[in-house]
Amino acid sequence: MPCPAQESRPAPPKKIIPKAPIGLTVDIMVDCKNIMSRRAKEMKASEIRELLKLTQKPGIISFAGGLPNPKAFPVDATRKIINELLDDSCEKVLQYGATEGIRPLRDALAAHMRDRGIKVDRKNILITHGSQQALDLISKVFLDPGDTVIVGSPTYLGATGAFRAFQADMKTVTVGDKGMDMDELDKKLEELIRLDCRPKFIYVVPTFQNPSGVTIPAENRKRLLEIADKYDMMIVEDSPYSYLRYEGEAMPHIMSLDKDGHVLRMQTFSKILAPGFRIAWVTGPEDIINQLVIAKQSSDLCTNPFGQYVAYKYVSEGTLYEHIDYIKELYNRKRLTMLDAMEQYFPKEVKWNRPEGGMFVWAILPEYVNTREMFPKAIEKNVAYVVGDAFFVEDEGYNTMRLNFTHSSEEEIVEGIKRLAKVIQHEIDENKGEKIEESIITP
Amino acid sequence: MPCPAQESRPAPPKKIIPKAPIGLTVDIMVDCKNIMSRRAKEMKASEIRELLKLTQKPGIISFAGGLPNPKAFPVDATRKIINELLDDSCEKVLQYGATEGIRPLRDALAAHMRDRGIKVDRKNILITHGSQQALDLISKVFLDPGDTVIVGSPTYLGATGAFRAFQADMKTVTVGDKGMDMDELDKKLEELIRLDCRPKFIYVVPTFQNPSGVTIPAENRKRLLEIADKYDMMIVEDSPYSYLRYEGEAMPHIMSLDKDGHVLRMQTFSKILAPGFRIAWVTGPEDIINQLVIAKQSSDLCTNPFGQYVAYKYVSEGTLYEHIDYIKELYNRKRLTMLDAMEQYFPKEVKWNRPEGGMFVWAILPEYVNTREMFPKAIEKNVAYVVGDAFFVEDEGYNTMRLNFTHSSEEEIVEGIKRLAKVIQHEIDENKGEKIEESIITP
Repeated sequence: MPCPAQESRPAPPKKIIPKAPIGLTVDIMVDCKNIMSRRAKEMKASEIRELLKLTQKPGIISFAGGLPNPKAFPVDATRKIINELLDDSCEKVLQYGATEGIRPLRDALAAHMRDRGIKVDRKNILITHGSQQALDLISKVFLDPGDTVIVGSPTYLGATGAFRAFQADMKTVTVGDKGMDMDELDKKLEELIRLDCRPKFIYVVPTFQNPSGVTIPAENRKRLLEIADKYDMMIVEDSPYSYLRYEGEAMPHIMSLDKDGHVLRMQTFSKILAPGFRIAWVTGPEDIINQLVIAKQSSDLCTNPFGQYVAYKYVSEGTLYEHIDYIKELYNRKRLTMLDAMEQYFPKEVKWNRPEGGMFVWAILPEYVNTREMFPKAIEKNVAYVVGDAFFVEDEGYNTMRLNFTHSSEEEIVEGIKRLAKVIQHEIDENKGEKIEESIITP
Repeated sequence: MPCPAQESRPAPPKKIIPKAPIGLTVDIMVDCKNIMSRRAKEMKASEIRELLKLTQKPGIISFAGGLPNPKAFPVDATRKIINELLDDSCEKVLQYGATEGIRPLRDALAAHMRDRGIKVDRKNILITHGSQQALDLISKVFLDPGDTVIVGSPTYLGATGAFRAFQADMKTVTVGDKGMDMDELDKKLEELIRLDCRPKFIYVVPTFQNPSGVTIPAENRKRLLEIADKYDMMIVEDSPYSYLRYEGEAMPHIMSLDKDGHVLRMQTFSKILAPGFRIAWVTGPEDIINQLVIAKQSSDLCTNPFGQYVAYKYVSEGTLYEHIDYIKELYNRKRLTMLDAMEQYFPKEVKWNRPEGGMFVWAILPEYVNTREMFPKAIEKNVAYVVGDAFFVEDEGYNTMRLNFTHSSEEEIVEGIKRLAKVIQHEIDENKGEKIEESIITP
């Protein structure tokens, strides 16, 4: 059925090659450095992005990126949804939309979140171009140059990139087996407030953290809220992976435990539908959402309505839940394959966690191994990872690495881990010797 | 044909309703005002956006918004392109993409621009979420609080919103029948530089400006470049409407006349394909584009690849050129209908221009008529426009209005202009009398 708006449309005219307007060619060259903003001078290109360029060579098995597996994309459902949308609603799906996001998607997400213990309606929800945009808007609305923000050590580097772009002063709290260390957080906040450096918010990825894969246990989530309450501070709960739990018990969302509107929660369709539409949502107190909407107006007017309508149909028709189960099964096999292969092939000096969900395993090498120095050697052996220090605000983590298990096939995972094990073994053998030698010379 | 990545995918499991995790409900309420950034305190909701809410009532004929007509959306071509993409390239179109934009689209746009006299390659092009995002990124990269920017009076309010969000100090130059007044610009720049307030850039919408519909003539485009060269200053050339010329001779793009890399040029698919994908592009010197790419990384990682691939196919398969001719024919009829109706029905005290392209007619009412005060009366009579003062940085333009002719049908245009003519006539009659009375009392 044609779209109603198209019915009276005549056949398009035959193709005409347009005339180029009058114009001269232009040599493009200018020195822009001297007119750049202070923030731009501080921005740096994403480390992962630069390293990922090296992983483009043929034959490489990459555990670097953080990409979903294309097999996890619901292509048939998407095709069906899109054809229906173009038949029935082309006027809406191809038009501009409201800055807040399209109403049916916000209503559907609010209902979805109410099912999960979070009492919200559409006024509490803003649709964004990926959770990255929520980080950008939160920074835009809350951060003046020099303002303090609490982040984990390690933490997601897209977040530190967003905060840095708004010239934040990031203070770190150790992330261990149970996520952010709550005693350290409490102490640090007390100290910062005494020094009149009250942080604007605490940023956490509480469930299957990127990069470390760790999850904050329920009692620590309550503790985090108590601390936020004690110091009257916002929590930014970035939760892209919470649907992807492969074992263990589901944790309550921090927002679902909150009674006082301390939490802004970010979720995304990138990991449960596909990243290609860049649809995510941020949930929070209505007055903060309103401020984020005003900031988004001047940032990009609205999130692409086409992708929003696809996401809406995907949520409202129940396809989402079926599909999440499928993805979990697919990714769990890959996770177990990687963990088994690491067990079998990795040198005994290497430690790693067993994430209950998400997309990453975090490995800690002996402290005399520098994963950044090792990186080109791994590339030479056709295997890639992300150097762990990229996830630390301060100079640390040089002996760590992040391994993604969702993008490669199971065969590639086994072969890639074998290759990486050899590279690591070689590095251990070389540096262990040197280290001992050094310590003999300089006691 | 199924997508290769899907071939080995098993049938999805049957629908399972997920269990809600443990959770309490939450009353969302917090006072965020005291932790907002200085910039957020200065931001204000778009005036148009607030006024547009009033135009949602049934039966209204709205010349307010700046929406393309849904009949201008190439639905059949889009459906065909999308089905091909999902069959052949689902791995790419549904996945994350590079921050710069997908390579084939950047290559195709570079070729397209070379055909139009602008010597660039893909390194000079960044794909953005609408031209609004380009304005945001340009502000992010160039503007520190208090930095000066030159804008027209009137000018596009999305631009002033973006600059205001980065705390720019906007200085205005009169926009007349020939666009920005070049003598005034020259004088103002000299004065500002003498006062040590060197502007970061000059922002212009040179062709069928939003809101005024005016176009800068060729000789003034050269003059603008000479002025930019004289003061060594960037020009931001925002050009969403240049494809939509219905009469008169095409003007050279400012960028095509530039020899020294002074120009950043913004273009969009919103007016020539559909706004629903939010795909636009900014062209400029490579080092500036690189800076904008770094800023975009932390803003939203990448523009939605799905929409980018649709735009790529649309450009590369030649559908674009055919379709632009179709849109031009459609919109020109609407333009002529509006101009004829204004001629026939509007009171003789009202002046307006005859735009050669674009989407808007700009009307100037007698100075004793305030279009903001008149607005609720128009809404009452079921017709809407945008109050002109929203497009001025300083307090002026209270007797002006912007009329969009692309979104309504021809019948609606005639009826809407009739209604508006009556509202204006009534306002003239009322205020003219009062004005005279007043001037008798207070000479």
